[in-house]
Amino acid sequence: MTQTLTNQSRSSALKALKCKECGAEYELQATHVCEFCFGPLEASYDFSRLSQPITRESIEAGPNSIWRYRSFLPVETDTPIDVGTGMTPLLKSHRLARQLGLKNLYIKNDAVNMPTLSFKDRVVSVALTRAQELGFSTVSCASTGNLANSTAAIATRAGLDCCVFIPADLEAGKVMGTLIYGPTVMAVQGNYDQVNRLCSEVANTHGWGFVNINLRPYYSEGSKTLGYEVAEQLGWELPDHIVAPLASGSLFTKIYKGFREFVDNGLVDDKAVRFSGAQAEGCSPIAQAYKEDRDFINPVKPNTIAKSIAIGNPADGVYAIDIAKKTNGTIESVTDAEIVEGMKLLAETEGIFTETAGGTTIAVLKKLVEAGKIDPEEKTVVYITGNGLKTQEAVQGCIGQPFEIEPKLGSFERALERSRTLDRLDWQPVLV
Amino acid sequence: MTQTLTNQSRSSALKALKCKECGAEYELQATHVCEFCFGPLEASYDFSRLSQPITRESIEAGPNSIWRYRSFLPVETDTPIDVGTGMTPLLKSHRLARQLGLKNLYIKNDAVNMPTLSFKDRVVSVALTRAQELGFSTVSCASTGNLANSTAAIATRAGLDCCVFIPADLEAGKVMGTLIYGPTVMAVQGNYDQVNRLCSEVANTHGWGFVNINLRPYYSEGSKTLGYEVAEQLGWELPDHIVAPLASGSLFTKIYKGFREFVDNGLVDDKAVRFSGAQAEGCSPIAQAYKEDRDFINPVKPNTIAKSIAIGNPADGVYAIDIAKKTNGTIESVTDAEIVEGMKLLAETEGIFTETAGGTTIAVLKKLVEAGKIDPEEKTVVYITGNGLKTQEAVQGCIGQPFEIEPKLGSFERALERSRTLDRLDWQPVLV
Ligand SMILES: [Zn+2]
Ligand SMILES: [Zn+2]
Repeated sequence: MTQTLTNQSRSSALKALKCKECGAEYELQATHVCEFCFGPLEASYDFSRLSQPITRESIEAGPNSIWRYRSFLPVETDTPIDVGTGMTPLLKSHRLARQLGLKNLYIKNDAVNMPTLSFKDRVVSVALTRAQELGFSTVSCASTGNLANSTAAIATRAGLDCCVFIPADLEAGKVMGTLIYGPTVMAVQGNYDQVNRLCSEVANTHGWGFVNINLRPYYSEGSKTLGYEVAEQLGWELPDHIVAPLASGSLFTKIYKGFREFVDNGLVDDKAVRFSGAQAEGCSPIAQAYKEDRDFINPVKPNTIAKSIAIGNPADGVYAIDIAKKTNGTIESVTDAEIVEGMKLLAETEGIFTETAGGTTIAVLKKLVEAGKIDPEEKTVVYITGNGLKTQEAVQGCIGQPFEIEPKLGSFERALERSRTLDRLDWQPVLV
Repeated sequence: MTQTLTNQSRSSALKALKCKECGAEYELQATHVCEFCFGPLEASYDFSRLSQPITRESIEAGPNSIWRYRSFLPVETDTPIDVGTGMTPLLKSHRLARQLGLKNLYIKNDAVNMPTLSFKDRVVSVALTRAQELGFSTVSCASTGNLANSTAAIATRAGLDCCVFIPADLEAGKVMGTLIYGPTVMAVQGNYDQVNRLCSEVANTHGWGFVNINLRPYYSEGSKTLGYEVAEQLGWELPDHIVAPLASGSLFTKIYKGFREFVDNGLVDDKAVRFSGAQAEGCSPIAQAYKEDRDFINPVKPNTIAKSIAIGNPADGVYAIDIAKKTNGTIESVTDAEIVEGMKLLAETEGIFTETAGGTTIAVLKKLVEAGKIDPEEKTVVYITGNGLKTQEAVQGCIGQPFEIEPKLGSFERALERSRTLDRLDWQPVLV
């Protein structure tokens, strides 16, 4: 099913897959586990082989998408699948910052990432580009929703067959946001971790390209672009502190890797960046291990509205803990009620409608500020990773209601009067 | 409520408001109707007053948003409200083009516009920037949904008070996608045209800035950016043919104006561009007038799933007809069933999940190709203006269903076997 491509391109720095634990090197195939120590494999590069050095100017001259960073990504082609993914806004926060008492808060808004409104479009664009290079004709994934949306959309654009696996209890918006593209969808009666185990078996028996299993070393590298973009958008400078959600932990480690690669290639000055991670209390195995100062994860059974980050057995959890510790960051969790409040707070102050994962991150940001763990002067970047239209269930009943009026001025005036006497936080359905 | 700003900036070309019918000129206030002939007012410019000429290079050096075209927009400030709106992808179509038999089809994808996933973010960004310049503290709109989303989101980001008016029967995603930002929402028991009439009364009595009423001459100019961007993204060249949805007709006329301004300022070569418009049969007053060769619109009562473009009494309908005629384009309508098929066709070929308006445009594109009204060689741009996650009702029951399986390899294998024997178009819910 897979075929070897020789990596002689002078425009690709991709060198080998390398075990994160023992350092053993592997050919650039669809494989993700070390044969010796069962550690995870990661893409490694030799930037010195590039015919042109990577400069700020060469990046700025590239496309307005993640592919401006192609030399840092694990592909060999000059024509990757580019549907405009990435280069989402980094917004300076005014109203949320003021409310929290912060002076240098930025919001990286992947709730409007292209094409399917989550950061997963980054990793899938990379994984499917690599899948094509490796000769796969069918791609697949184990997903909590966003990944299924993204895999189905980008696969159909690229003309790849697609079969995705999701937990059967997913939010309606995420199921429809997958089915619309016409893939085969397997709704598994079980949680994400059970879906994931089933997919590992299928990957071994069917020769499909699972973006987050056998293609994982390529796939996960796409998240580095969330580091690159923030550095570029801050004017080629690293932030002081980042706050990001933790699901498998991969995103967190890849933002870190992205910052390091920018420093190592002379694109930004070196600087201590604090890394803080956010989990939902109903699925917080990484936060629990961090709190108890363990260097291993005790898997949990997820029970939270933040389904997109509800991974009970997170593959990169220990690496995330390591980064939080060594950068003087922290890992914190919040309740489902706090998550909903976080979603509302971000929408009402900044006009960004994020999904539950984003609500988790904002709620943790607030908690860290209140605990004195974020300096008001720190240049802090909070990562919003998905769109609220996909998890409408989460806020149903927790937000205001329209005033139902007749199409008459008098009816409007009475409603307006009512709206002014109502405490906004106590809004209830009102019939005028 | 409003205050006069002197327009002495050398970085703004904004000159006056001008009646589209009689040419009478007005000061740059919040006003939209000619006192003499009741014609609509439009922003006019004097580009010669700019201290720097507008060049391709000056535009390319600007921000990655509609504000790179600031000199063409009706504002005076150097610090507009910029939330990353615009510069959405122009995708070269491969799979849809092949299916339709076209060779040069491009898709302008505002389904992923920022921040609220429709082209309305363009017009609202402009209108609210101007509203701030004119001293308004409360902004409002009459909306079929997308505009309410956008006004509420961008107003809260800018710290403006907001009250929006929508028809009471709107799609759930559009209501929630407004309420989440915390504005006052008036759900009017009536159709859009009734909402609009009520809002005209409120605008006259409350001194609010209604983006699409008293601020309409500024607001509507934002749509020109859909012309500029396409020209820039085609490599500083106009297309041969554009297909766009018609609601009020304003979008259509402003894309035309945008192309003309680019030609007049020497940014692109002049070229005949054909303009074709799309309506839903259940609300097609412009298509009907076009078909019957009338130069006036007979208002209709909307009855279609394409609610976002269901304007029964379209303000700019006659101007849209004029443009279609003089450019050798056409105006066509499609049924609700064809609209759903259009949504599915775009999703399954290009991985873009659009709302009903986009389905309308794709269905009309298909109809025009089948009628021989689009040359396969023509460089054709189809405008997708909104996101399918907001109108999930429209495709519910019309798309495939997941296969429900147990987390076991055998259960998966049986489902896969079933999926392969099912004709994809006949997919039904299957329990394995
Ligand atoms: Zn190893
Ligand atoms: Zn006039």
